[in-house]
Amino acid sequence: MTKRIITISREFGSGGRFIGEEVAKKLGIAYYDKNIINEIAEKSGLSPEYIQENAELSPKKGLFAYAFAGRDVTGKSVEDLVYEAQRKVILELAEKESCVIIGRNADYILKDRDDVLNVFIHGDTPEKIQRITRLYNVEEQKAVKMMVDIDKRRMANYNFYTNQKWGGKADNYTLCLNSSQLGYDRCEKIIMECI
Amino acid sequence: MTKRIITISREFGSGGRFIGEEVAKKLGIAYYDKNIINEIAEKSGLSPEYIQENAELSPKKGLFAYAFAGRDVTGKSVEDLVYEAQRKVILELAEKESCVIIGRNADYILKDRDDVLNVFIHGDTPEKIQRITRLYNVEEQKAVKMMVDIDKRRMANYNFYTNQKWGGKADNYTLCLNSSQLGYDRCEKIIMECI
Repeated sequence: MTKRIITISREFGSGGRFIGEEVAKKLGIAYYDKNIINEIAEKSGLSPEYIQENAELSPKKGLFAYAFAGRDVTGKSVEDLVYEAQRKVILELAEKESCVIIGRNADYILKDRDDVLNVFIHGDTPEKIQRITRLYNVEEQKAVKMMVDIDKRRMANYNFYTNQKWGGKADNYTLCLNSSQLGYDRCEKIIMECI
Repeated sequence: MTKRIITISREFGSGGRFIGEEVAKKLGIAYYDKNIINEIAEKSGLSPEYIQENAELSPKKGLFAYAFAGRDVTGKSVEDLVYEAQRKVILELAEKESCVIIGRNADYILKDRDDVLNVFIHGDTPEKIQRITRLYNVEEQKAVKMMVDIDKRRMANYNFYTNQKWGGKADNYTLCLNSSQLGYDRCEKIIMECI
């Protein structure tokens, strides 16, 4: 089956978002990242600001608290509502057009389609820290903290909603690429070769 | 750093060995698989038949027994001697020439070199079983048993000697490819692009 949708999961600082955006440009297909927040907001009835903070990352309180906190009488938390809205938006996008979707558990949400190329971009720690330092204009120590914190929250969100393990597991992806060793250009080229 | 050595770790039935052999042929570089058994035998003083059975797979008795069984006064088991000989052979090969090395924990053994491309080839279960059935001329049930058994023994050997987790972990590899979804030809092309 020809692949026409690309999901990109990525470690923070690995350049996965950048690579995904370049691939979308070069292939002339749609690119979905933060720009789907308004649609998720509309579907869930929550504010775009709230979605921005919660749609991909689990709250800082950690997975255990996450699983039990703030549920209404139906057992659904606000996070569940966000997730459900996000899921619907992603399913509709995949139906509508060829596209690149960054993060947001899209690999799992689209797992029943066979036209999806699931990519995981990871990198070596020194290169990731260097990139974060530069992009966010922060000191090295702060960059390390950001990297650990954001990956941990992405992981908690993914593991909670997918029953799969975030990152690491090659089995969940068609393609895993180490962007520090391969370089961004080569990662883009490899992904485009699979479409 | 340009990569000139390719290590291929693979799930049983994923076609990883075949892909590695094709890549070596197309690049015109050396290919090391079972053909290093004689060298390991010579270095360890054990028979090639023994090496064949033990150099990559842990014994059927399982990891716990494996860790404690049959050690001499220096604390070394026969498996340790085999492993040590295999390690030396692989370090020498990498020093000598550009090559493809299949399995044998070569990714870990060569981890201090930066001219090594570490590839993990995995696949979807139905396709792997189909391949095993055809290649070994066995019934489906037997193919499933072979697949589970051999991957388990490879894993026990790898985990014991490397302190890393075999397979799955994308972080250990530059490139992880799902051969069932990408096809063997495309896997070869992607690997060659990274050299």
